[in-house]
Amino acid sequence: MPVVHPVKQAIPPKTLKDMGFEMVITNAYITMRNHGEEAAKRGIHDIIGFDGAVMTDSGGYQVLEYGGLDTTPEEMAHYERQIGSDIAIPLDKPTGFGLPRRIAAGYVRQTLADSRATLEAADIDGQLWAGPIQGGEHLGLVARSARELAKMGFPVMALGSPVEFMEQYEYARLAQMITAARRAIPPSLPLHLFGSGHPLTISLSVALGCDTFDSASYALYARHGRYISEDGTRRLEEMAHFSCLCPACSGRTPPELGAEEPGERYRLLSLHNLYAIKAEVDRVAESVSEGRLWEYTIKKLRAHPRLYEALAVLRDGADHISYGTPRFKPKAALLFGAEDLWRPEVRAYCQMVRRFKTPKKSLCLVREPTMRPAYLDGGIIRLEDILGPGVQICLLSAHLGAVPLELSDIYPAAHHLAAAGAENQTRDHVLGTIQGIIDGNAFEQVVYDRSDPYIAGLVRRLPRGIARAPLPKKKRKKRAEQKRS
Amino acid sequence: MPVVHPVKQAIPPKTLKDMGFEMVITNAYITMRNHGEEAAKRGIHDIIGFDGAVMTDSGGYQVLEYGGLDTTPEEMAHYERQIGSDIAIPLDKPTGFGLPRRIAAGYVRQTLADSRATLEAADIDGQLWAGPIQGGEHLGLVARSARELAKMGFPVMALGSPVEFMEQYEYARLAQMITAARRAIPPSLPLHLFGSGHPLTISLSVALGCDTFDSASYALYARHGRYISEDGTRRLEEMAHFSCLCPACSGRTPPELGAEEPGERYRLLSLHNLYAIKAEVDRVAESVSEGRLWEYTIKKLRAHPRLYEALAVLRDGADHISYGTPRFKPKAALLFGAEDLWRPEVRAYCQMVRRFKTPKKSLCLVREPTMRPAYLDGGIIRLEDILGPGVQICLLSAHLGAVPLELSDIYPAAHHLAAAGAENQTRDHVLGTIQGIIDGNAFEQVVYDRSDPYIAGLVRRLPRGIARAPLPKKKRKKRAEQKRS
Repeated sequence: MPVVHPVKQAIPPKTLKDMGFEMVITNAYITMRNHGEEAAKRGIHDIIGFDGAVMTDSGGYQVLEYGGLDTTPEEMAHYERQIGSDIAIPLDKPTGFGLPRRIAAGYVRQTLADSRATLEAADIDGQLWAGPIQGGEHLGLVARSARELAKMGFPVMALGSPVEFMEQYEYARLAQMITAARRAIPPSLPLHLFGSGHPLTISLSVALGCDTFDSASYALYARHGRYISEDGTRRLEEMAHFSCLCPACSGRTPPELGAEEPGERYRLLSLHNLYAIKAEVDRVAESVSEGRLWEYTIKKLRAHPRLYEALAVLRDGADHISYGTPRFKPKAALLFGAEDLWRPEVRAYCQMVRRFKTPKKSLCLVREPTMRPAYLDGGIIRLEDILGPGVQICLLSAHLGAVPLELSDIYPAAHHLAAAGAENQTRDHVLGTIQGIIDGNAFEQVVYDRSDPYIAGLVRRLPRGIARAPLPKKKRKKRAEQKRS
Repeated sequence: MPVVHPVKQAIPPKTLKDMGFEMVITNAYITMRNHGEEAAKRGIHDIIGFDGAVMTDSGGYQVLEYGGLDTTPEEMAHYERQIGSDIAIPLDKPTGFGLPRRIAAGYVRQTLADSRATLEAADIDGQLWAGPIQGGEHLGLVARSARELAKMGFPVMALGSPVEFMEQYEYARLAQMITAARRAIPPSLPLHLFGSGHPLTISLSVALGCDTFDSASYALYARHGRYISEDGTRRLEEMAHFSCLCPACSGRTPPELGAEEPGERYRLLSLHNLYAIKAEVDRVAESVSEGRLWEYTIKKLRAHPRLYEALAVLRDGADHISYGTPRFKPKAALLFGAEDLWRPEVRAYCQMVRRFKTPKKSLCLVREPTMRPAYLDGGIIRLEDILGPGVQICLLSAHLGAVPLELSDIYPAAHHLAAAGAENQTRDHVLGTIQGIIDGNAFEQVVYDRSDPYIAGLVRRLPRGIARAPLPKKKRKKRAEQKRS
């Protein structure tokens, strides 16, 4: 949602609609100060000239920037109803980033009380009220705030103050804050992330469970001659080439855009910045459609080292993101390095394997073939034939670990592409999955190819209690077959 | 360079020029078969209607696809001169991918002989002749082919058959082939990569030293309803959202584009595909301008697991890419994981540190502060004060290893941003750099903070010959200062 100022607009809201934005956010407090009763009569859609859904912030950002306001939650609730906001936000007290816990706790308490008062005073007339989650980097406060608002019955949630995290490059903490909020509320509640519509973080935020964003950055950056691109923001005068194909960029070089007169340059830069954000939203949407949001997000994290640090949050704190991840995806999972061990499909698969039971007494470890599913592979079929039915074959995948042959037609074992060379990074993981299968069953021996240094190295690290046996030679079998025939 | 067919054109060459393409490639053999003397009279620029540089392939691709041609190298050389080609290519015999070495060697020999004959017969009239490097996956042949052509005096090189590598997803081998060719010729010789203009590989190819590309894929893919995007190719009917802002995509959804009548769909898809390639070229060009080609390329490798395998080539075989890497860059080096240890700036810095000499007898190891350059950091200044001039301070960076304080204002030590959390991946590297400094000097003891598990872990792994001492406490110093004051 582009932020639309109720008075001065960088881009006419009509243009926003034409660009494909179906929803905008504007500010009810500024509307009240500038349009007063007029807006209550004409409605906010008419005031800003937007024929689509309008969300209204209530002045929280103004509180953050300029301190207390001369209004009450009840008055704002009444006004937001009068102007016909589609999604309205109670007057909240944003914590931002960097407040001591005690002060932040007070802001959260007040926002909760005001939100309750707002809901009671709102006299709801079709609009949705969004519960303003606060707490900043104090994750316990964020969780409590989110839980309480959900209990009050807010049908939408809105998480406050990510912009201050982003200004400080605190992307990992931003990810932790989103995680804390998302975990505290039911998966069915939509989560809006206030003012975090920069291409850098949209993919990460969506992966962590945010549904909508708003952004005034397109115009704010433009005012300072800054150009938004998919992996950051640049000063226009530092740029040599435009790769963007939007109407503002195409047919112009950076110096040509820079030479436009100030008003036109501001307009063109705002327009480009908004197109750049829109394109990122569409890339993320398409990656969701394709079941490739994980791949896209991990790639995206390499835009900035501080952003990359959010990887640790995906590793340690984001179990909730597996909710809703389909059990089966039509496109192959693309697996690269150790970071892909944390993706929901891989975790879910490994958890399933941990419950695998067999009465067989022998475990054969072989490298995963490239054929999918593996049981169709000629080499595996021959191996089954050589080993006979008493031996459990497990395929070793650098990412999925030990894959029992019987589970090799389940996604993602049945459908993945893995980069060679990850074995060194994932050895402990693979060993853990082998250990899991051994612990869960009653194998007396492990059969493996001693000449394969990778497998031999893994087997060497298994506990002593289990016997080792070499893989029967294929040639013997062949000779036996020849004799028979 | 878009491939322009001399007879039937997906996109009028005039449009190509307007899109910003200043050079195209077309086929002299097909021109001869279809336009004959007419082209010799009017010139190739007039025949295809392109007001810019025109490169002409000579029929090599037709040899690869359909076998021998009814012409000779000398005849083609004469004809390419007649039609006024700006960059002409001798009639070569492409090796493609998958030929046995013996056969490929024969093709290389023949191409070399024909190239020599071509140069002799060419009667050069201002145009450049490009030496066609062949050899496929046989890297020794590629190197020999490139060396011989350079010796003959070709002012431009053109490396053959990458398309067959790409069709087989043999990206790592493609990277090896480029490396073999690039290493065999002087850095000053421009290297064209035949038919490899897909967004997936442009960045990698440029990083490895290719200068120009051509591509017919925009039209070939369009014919099969395929849509080129920055990280691959998709079937149009599988797509839900366009994120592209080009004239063919904007204002249309994938189903809407799919519903156009076949001729128009083909034209629009071709146009989009070409815009997508152009945008990637511009992104790569901008990343070169910014000194961020490495960052961009590594990110790009995550588009496909087989592409990611080319990382190993950057690690093991691409020392030549450091040629021309500036000693200083105006933008901070962005450092993420272990793969960034191989980037040219990091390698060059570590090599310089290996030559560092000091007469000091004590080595103090401390974590790198966030301040750049590090000697401006308050903590480091206090530490210098505590330790006195007899102790060599080395800062430990997870990526640069041991950084002598005196070298901390040299790029990239002076100007980098590193993601926290890489320590586990780069321990051996950091240890190696500490060992290098110890080996090159005459330290008798190592001073370090025993309470820092990271540094203590590194020191534990140093050889026995050197004494260990704890870091003097800052507090003592402070008390001493207080007494003095």
